[in-house]
Amino acid sequence: MQFGIIGGGSWATALAKILTDSHHHIHWWIRNADAIRYIQQRRHNPHYLSAANFDTQLLSLSTNAAEVIAACDVVIIAVPSAYVNDILSTLPADTFKGKKIVSAVKGILPESNQLLNEYLAEKFRFPLQDYFAVLGPCHAEEVAAEKLSYLTFSGKDEATAAAIAACFKGDYLNIVVNHDIIGVQYAAVLKNIYALGAGIAHGLEYGDNFLSVYIANAANEMAGFLQKAMQSHAGETDCEKDINYNSSVYLGDLLVTCYSLYSRNRMFGNMIGKGYSVKAATLELNMVAEGYNASRCMYQTNAPIQANMPVATAIYRILWEQVPAAEGFAGIEGILV
Amino acid sequence: MQFGIIGGGSWATALAKILTDSHHHIHWWIRNADAIRYIQQRRHNPHYLSAANFDTQLLSLSTNAAEVIAACDVVIIAVPSAYVNDILSTLPADTFKGKKIVSAVKGILPESNQLLNEYLAEKFRFPLQDYFAVLGPCHAEEVAAEKLSYLTFSGKDEATAAAIAACFKGDYLNIVVNHDIIGVQYAAVLKNIYALGAGIAHGLEYGDNFLSVYIANAANEMAGFLQKAMQSHAGETDCEKDINYNSSVYLGDLLVTCYSLYSRNRMFGNMIGKGYSVKAATLELNMVAEGYNASRCMYQTNAPIQANMPVATAIYRILWEQVPAAEGFAGIEGILV
Repeated sequence: MQFGIIGGGSWATALAKILTDSHHHIHWWIRNADAIRYIQQRRHNPHYLSAANFDTQLLSLSTNAAEVIAACDVVIIAVPSAYVNDILSTLPADTFKGKKIVSAVKGILPESNQLLNEYLAEKFRFPLQDYFAVLGPCHAEEVAAEKLSYLTFSGKDEATAAAIAACFKGDYLNIVVNHDIIGVQYAAVLKNIYALGAGIAHGLEYGDNFLSVYIANAANEMAGFLQKAMQSHAGETDCEKDINYNSSVYLGDLLVTCYSLYSRNRMFGNMIGKGYSVKAATLELNMVAEGYNASRCMYQTNAPIQANMPVATAIYRILWEQVPAAEGFAGIEGILV
Repeated sequence: MQFGIIGGGSWATALAKILTDSHHHIHWWIRNADAIRYIQQRRHNPHYLSAANFDTQLLSLSTNAAEVIAACDVVIIAVPSAYVNDILSTLPADTFKGKKIVSAVKGILPESNQLLNEYLAEKFRFPLQDYFAVLGPCHAEEVAAEKLSYLTFSGKDEATAAAIAACFKGDYLNIVVNHDIIGVQYAAVLKNIYALGAGIAHGLEYGDNFLSVYIANAANEMAGFLQKAMQSHAGETDCEKDINYNSSVYLGDLLVTCYSLYSRNRMFGNMIGKGYSVKAATLELNMVAEGYNASRCMYQTNAPIQANMPVATAIYRILWEQVPAAEGFAGIEGILV
């Protein structure tokens, strides 16, 4: 397998490290030519995860995405969801023909509320059968530090997912394979919403007792949504098989995100809980947390699915409908079990 | 309902605060006469949760357990499991006749591997029908600070469980009712084992990514055990009804215990992970963590049930069979999903 990576951020850099540490050569697209020169000379990314050192003999770096994609069998797309359209929309329609795509995009495309596979199907007629996702509770910084982490590779075609996954396995990286390609992607979006909500709860001065109740109920709400969403995708995916919603790609990722004190979602939520407006929090932190857009995306996505999601809905209403944070949380206190 | 509380520690004191804050009069047994005099004069417990102030008009304090029990309808037993036999064994066989008992004992009786209901059935022929448990993710310190917390009241007799629970509901205390009287008690024991294991993982320098995978898998292992255990108690409890193992009394309590940095289980486990022997850790910390005895109790309890418990078993072997911590955890790395 020849791997290509699209993206130069911290998660793309972590995936590049994992693959090259397992002695795989990679074709690597980074937008910025200066960053490429820096990596070639200094053997690490200047902007992200600078502790990760590379064997540059294993890297073919390029600013030309079409060239990188042409050179590989498996294309790993590892850019923030907000940049996907920007990067891919100018590529010819047959760019991905015969390729496997692995999504490392943690989020829904904001313009269209689409998962990456939906976008690729629309723009490139790319088949779900050849589409995979790599997700899981995996702070890039811990990959750089070579702390044991777990990644889950999902795909309708589980055999190919397993073959791709095997290339990532290494001393500090364990792999899990599952077939729930739609569910794992929604889980990765939902966890950001619940983590932002955990920040709001903290800002409102709820304590650890409440936080644990909140997260347990969020886990349950997520599993309920995923089951209903899977039924609504029944034609595309195999919904006969049992899915373990306690496994790392679902519950583990929710936990690491909600309990991470320094995540953007948590900090953003904390300010909302303390009474800042979304606009003020965005200006103060100089960024928008993923959970902010995700809350609206998932609210709209759930409209036809109609899963029972009082926690995610409360967060949506606080962020998008000017419901005061204290009022929004007071409204869910009574339904948590 | 007339409530009695047996116990003078921090959890008993928190329960006394909750009930009296809801304007219930309580009969309260504390072993130490000096502590009783102190509470009567200074309105708070001298040794535990001293921030919790009492309306002493609502307290009938006594060092005589039989007297306290005789005066009430509902006896809340809130002493560490290791002291239960010591406190109750000298009471006459008919002491609890006609009473309801609410267990706030978080653990298995170490001499006999019995849940409190099993001990009461043996010593007092006390019927499971009149037995309840109050459990959940609830640090006593946050009760003292009046941070919103959730307690779950469990019993075969759900209607009475709900009536008892209603007396605890208040501004900072929400209540949940369930019927899984055996399962909630085992969950409260298991969480201590997994929290001790989280401490071991930290001592071994695993990171947050691993911790989240470990806890998610522990949650799954716990749910699997509880389902099997319920089937083995099928004659005593109603195993037809679905149980939500993501609710606060199961998953929430596991989370708050595993993520609590200052718990005894975590500190004890951390020392084991760093290479201290059980004896050295016990001497250094001047206590034994609940999870230590619990690991052996649950290992033995699971022998006839035969749930698949690789995580709890690894922790048992590290603590009781001198398996090096690194070796024990290396053995479970490959089975986590």
